[in-house]
Amino acid sequence: MRAAIYDGPGEISVEEVPRPEIEDPGDAIVRVTHTAVCGSDLWFYRGESDREAGSRVGHEPMGVVEAVGDDVDSVRPGDHVFAPFVVSCGYCEYCRRGLHTSCVNGDSWGGDNGGAQGEYVRSPHADGTLVRVPDRYADDEDVLESVLPLTDVMGTGHHAAVSAGVGAGDTCVVVGDGAVGLCGVLAARRLGASRIVAVGHHPDRLALAAEFGATETVLGGDGTDVVDRVRELTYGGAEHVLECVGAASAMEQAVEVCRPGGTVGYVGVPHGVDDAGVPIFDMFGDNIALRGGVAPVRAYADDLLEDVLGGTLDPSPIFTKTVSLEEIAAGYRAMDERDAIKVLVEP
Amino acid sequence: MRAAIYDGPGEISVEEVPRPEIEDPGDAIVRVTHTAVCGSDLWFYRGESDREAGSRVGHEPMGVVEAVGDDVDSVRPGDHVFAPFVVSCGYCEYCRRGLHTSCVNGDSWGGDNGGAQGEYVRSPHADGTLVRVPDRYADDEDVLESVLPLTDVMGTGHHAAVSAGVGAGDTCVVVGDGAVGLCGVLAARRLGASRIVAVGHHPDRLALAAEFGATETVLGGDGTDVVDRVRELTYGGAEHVLECVGAASAMEQAVEVCRPGGTVGYVGVPHGVDDAGVPIFDMFGDNIALRGGVAPVRAYADDLLEDVLGGTLDPSPIFTKTVSLEEIAAGYRAMDERDAIKVLVEP
Repeated sequence: MRAAIYDGPGEISVEEVPRPEIEDPGDAIVRVTHTAVCGSDLWFYRGESDREAGSRVGHEPMGVVEAVGDDVDSVRPGDHVFAPFVVSCGYCEYCRRGLHTSCVNGDSWGGDNGGAQGEYVRSPHADGTLVRVPDRYADDEDVLESVLPLTDVMGTGHHAAVSAGVGAGDTCVVVGDGAVGLCGVLAARRLGASRIVAVGHHPDRLALAAEFGATETVLGGDGTDVVDRVRELTYGGAEHVLECVGAASAMEQAVEVCRPGGTVGYVGVPHGVDDAGVPIFDMFGDNIALRGGVAPVRAYADDLLEDVLGGTLDPSPIFTKTVSLEEIAAGYRAMDERDAIKVLVEP
Repeated sequence: MRAAIYDGPGEISVEEVPRPEIEDPGDAIVRVTHTAVCGSDLWFYRGESDREAGSRVGHEPMGVVEAVGDDVDSVRPGDHVFAPFVVSCGYCEYCRRGLHTSCVNGDSWGGDNGGAQGEYVRSPHADGTLVRVPDRYADDEDVLESVLPLTDVMGTGHHAAVSAGVGAGDTCVVVGDGAVGLCGVLAARRLGASRIVAVGHHPDRLALAAEFGATETVLGGDGTDVVDRVRELTYGGAEHVLECVGAASAMEQAVEVCRPGGTVGYVGVPHGVDDAGVPIFDMFGDNIALRGGVAPVRAYADDLLEDVLGGTLDPSPIFTKTVSLEEIAAGYRAMDERDAIKVLVEP
């Protein structure tokens, strides 16, 4: 089968690799029909994080079940499914508590499981990991494109909103206009926020944020101005701030626009904060809480899927470019050069 | 009147200073009968934080109202009162929300208000700041010594427990065996925790933690052993951790003994974390939340006072030494040399 391979910074190729097979009775083999390039893929692509050259990539699989092991109950061959960016068993303490990212039997895509940017993946713990898309939507391309972000960015934006404690009638600020930030806007609107101030660096993305439900947008550049403007708009800061970038500067901005006693929900993988530090002194003086982390998107998948299928939630506009698997290198380039918000890949 | 003066690192004197007077209709003058030396006083005493030589010190006043301004309704001359370590108006947004430390009309002890380690203080915003102790307890020295920690450390330990989300039946870990950590143990027990693991560096203080309700104590030294031991005792970490020190090493330990998805409630003024950083990567991967900050002890004062007066809460054993105002330098030395957990001062 064909699969994307990371060859080193800036180098993605598509090569012939062995097709994964059932190895464990809990496994399922999924033929990938839709997947995506993630903002976090850019870290190794840019050489900012370590990844072994020759490794399989991609962690947002959606497709059709080809085969299942003897112990798999929840899906059968022919089912349309998607999977979160991590594998989880579904029955350990953490899965039962909705913290699937801490699953004690957890696993990841890539390696022997195959990367999601390839023709097939093997899903260990298929019962705990895979989410079925009802058959009636199996051929509805629009629906499938709206479902695909549930593998990662939509669940991650939702986690930011949940972690920040966004509820009906609330005022919140979303820091970041990438795919996760935009999904954070959708999530905040879905949770009933009355005012959503989106902060970003790209006019086109902020325009999409406004379509997604942001009531105000603030275009960045000089950090101080952004903080002042947001504080002005929120009469001194919002009680709920979604930090959807991960850079130390974004974390600092998030704390600065948070109202005393408020909560920053953070989901951006920390980036550079080891040098700059979390602004703990500001947090301490103002009793600003920090909640969040790597998003347990499996915990949110069923609820979010219901809304996508019901037509009240549609994150698909974040896909501003679609490529085939063979063209995936162009997809990485488009993301890297910020020509695309997020790239959909159709193997 | 006589008052303690900070003369420079390691130097506390008692000098004659002007007695404060009513300056604003909301002021009250309090004759201080009981006050204390705080762990945070040691920072300037040790030269670790800046403080102007010649400044008045002390921020935990308890005593008798001598005079009130025309607008003061809640206390009258002769009333026994105590005050938190910050002045708060009681009617702004933050005071109404229980975040008195962010009071927009807030003020502090010291300066023209007089330090609490002196014969008299002026309390601005007396209606918002002072808490009355009922007359029937006015001559009960035991009760007054149990009330005094509500000015700071008992409310601070309680804030750690509340911030960590401690509730009935919970397992929690208290990092730190200073006065705040010990009060954190009391607070956790009061909130109904079933298991309280106290971590510290002093056998005598851990013995007091056990008296206060710790079900297990872990004596530190080598950090790794402590973390392993606490993880063993809690089957992999506790969901609620009270960080009552503020040092970067304590914060790191608190995160390490926190169960994935759990919360660290922190109240130790951050100390050294600008170099070492908050362990944000561990927090991110395990979805460990950080809540807390400078404790709004005024918000908790009425509830805690009720329990102290009712006899179900008694933090007074943290006072292991009592000095007169003239002897206060010896009190600082005893705290600095860890000969005393906390020193009570009777001007």
